[in-house]
Amino acid sequence: MLQVRASSAFLPSTSSPSPPSSSQAPAPAPFRLSGKSQRRGGLIAVPQASRVARRSVMAAAGAAAAAPAAAKLEDADALIDSVETFIFDCDGVIWKGDKLIDGVPETLDLLRSKGKRLVFVTNNSTKSRKQYGRKFETLGLSVDEEEIFASSFAAAAYLQSIDFPKDKKVYVIGEEGILKELELAGFQYLGGPTDGDKKIELKPGLYMEHDEDVGAVVVGFDRYFNYYKVQYGTLCIRENPGCLFIATNRDAVTHLTDAQEWAGGGAMVGALLGSTKQEPLVVGKPSTFMMDYLAKKFGITTSQICMVGDRLDTDILFGQNGGCKTLLVLSGVTSLQTLQSPDNSIQPDFYTNQISDFLTLKAATV
Amino acid sequence: MLQVRASSAFLPSTSSPSPPSSSQAPAPAPFRLSGKSQRRGGLIAVPQASRVARRSVMAAAGAAAAAPAAAKLEDADALIDSVETFIFDCDGVIWKGDKLIDGVPETLDLLRSKGKRLVFVTNNSTKSRKQYGRKFETLGLSVDEEEIFASSFAAAAYLQSIDFPKDKKVYVIGEEGILKELELAGFQYLGGPTDGDKKIELKPGLYMEHDEDVGAVVVGFDRYFNYYKVQYGTLCIRENPGCLFIATNRDAVTHLTDAQEWAGGGAMVGALLGSTKQEPLVVGKPSTFMMDYLAKKFGITTSQICMVGDRLDTDILFGQNGGCKTLLVLSGVTSLQTLQSPDNSIQPDFYTNQISDFLTLKAATV
Repeated sequence: MLQVRASSAFLPSTSSPSPPSSSQAPAPAPFRLSGKSQRRGGLIAVPQASRVARRSVMAAAGAAAAAPAAAKLEDADALIDSVETFIFDCDGVIWKGDKLIDGVPETLDLLRSKGKRLVFVTNNSTKSRKQYGRKFETLGLSVDEEEIFASSFAAAAYLQSIDFPKDKKVYVIGEEGILKELELAGFQYLGGPTDGDKKIELKPGLYMEHDEDVGAVVVGFDRYFNYYKVQYGTLCIRENPGCLFIATNRDAVTHLTDAQEWAGGGAMVGALLGSTKQEPLVVGKPSTFMMDYLAKKFGITTSQICMVGDRLDTDILFGQNGGCKTLLVLSGVTSLQTLQSPDNSIQPDFYTNQISDFLTLKAATV
Repeated sequence: MLQVRASSAFLPSTSSPSPPSSSQAPAPAPFRLSGKSQRRGGLIAVPQASRVARRSVMAAAGAAAAAPAAAKLEDADALIDSVETFIFDCDGVIWKGDKLIDGVPETLDLLRSKGKRLVFVTNNSTKSRKQYGRKFETLGLSVDEEEIFASSFAAAAYLQSIDFPKDKKVYVIGEEGILKELELAGFQYLGGPTDGDKKIELKPGLYMEHDEDVGAVVVGFDRYFNYYKVQYGTLCIRENPGCLFIATNRDAVTHLTDAQEWAGGGAMVGALLGSTKQEPLVVGKPSTFMMDYLAKKFGITTSQICMVGDRLDTDILFGQNGGCKTLLVLSGVTSLQTLQSPDNSIQPDFYTNQISDFLTLKAATV
């Protein structure tokens, strides 16, 4: 009853080598349940699983077991020429909060002029692609909705990829972005902000009814998280046969505001894990679902992709898990000191200060 | 910064063999961080770690690696004579919800008349020992407050055991029982029900202040759980040097009402784990902190204790982790079928229908 019951082989995956626990059904190869590496890791301490994952990537590339230190990007042209698609994380790469990072519009223009495909990926599930599109527009960037892959979209895309029945419903712990994407994909849903004010007032014999047609619970960041939602989601996952537990991401922190780091979607997912004892299917980074999805959609192989991000344990690991080239930018949360610390074993292929370095590192000579 | 920083060797423990993760400092032997076995396990599927823990108990006893099937209790006298203290779980053993289980008062009287020490242990942290005392009284049972060990008390007792400084504060995610026990133990606290109605309303630049004197965050079952509490607790654990993360328990389900199973303290603990990426120190079952505490307090060795419970993965594991004899009663959540299922590898020493079987299985011949 408490087993993982994925209804298709199209499972979100990472290259995390952790074996499934005894309460999980093995996932069909080559896909595996994801999120382990993130859960075990810290924000500063390097996740053990990630280290192993990195080793497996290196081993696959025929390199030594120890990851070589990342090289400072010297020849942007060579990197750009070697790939077809750039996937950009947004916060810390394209913008910081509501402020565009220097030189971004020109850099994107340069890459487009060289015929590169651009994709923007974010674990933030509070907005839909359309809402993200408006954010890009506000910042003066011309980005097509189809180029944006938020984890809200990923949740809906995942359900589509497994032919989730249209007569089933999705219970949502999360904000508006998830609801909008589910609606666009034609799925029935309940929960979300509507349940934000509901309370459990203790009365003898109190019993919570739940909808037996719920076939998936999608959990993302939710600042209106409460016990009602925990219990409702738990009942669906535990009592509805085959009900999926899908996490948009397991990020420890998110940037609700720029003033500090806020507890992220990992908190909401952790709560449901604590009450269901079931591992979620993660569709956001570092699971490679989004990468596999877009590789399939655009017909490209992941070795022709360069993942550009500011976080080692989500962005760079995501790229490495997917078999992409990886570029760390120091314009976000990771400092050069953290990258080069002996405690860090997630090494991107290259690092540079910010993406506008593409403009000066030979690449401007189009 | 995100390391486990226990300030004393008196760490809550289980015999879980899981090594600490890379982000945790090793705990001083023989104590280990606890909760792993519970977290990995399911309610029905047997936790892998538990299985190993059981094996280690058996190995220590010189038995074969496979746990022998539990024996039906035939000779209550022999069991009673072989131990000095009985630890009873409450729900499913003494009562069910608000109803006393048949024959309990007579059974407790019998044991007292034989000079046995009786202790009542519960993972429920919503009540203090005093409040539990009133519950026993209401049910017509004469039990001393000192005989009651709820996880709310365990949290306060743990802080006392490590000489938690009186000028530091405790942030509480949980209900009134924890506050009352902290108050009785003379600790300063904040949070609890007071924060139940607080919301995070998004404004640009929003910043949550937190008290830098908080040296421990205690997390228990909390039906008024919300994002404010998650963020406050996370800030304390992540940003206050040495701040402890203490869980009263990690139970997947609790019995808020008898009408159904409700998401338990494991949900609140899981949320904080998801946002801090730090493992909690667990003071409730199956961690043996309470057992070690009372063995020390009463000067008894745990081999002279019999743990009586209705749950395999908390009560029986708790007893086995502590080196006690174990008796499963079938008057609660575990059926004979579950006990004897090939999937179950947590085998108590004995099982019986209910504790009043002590009255009929020879034991009545005092």
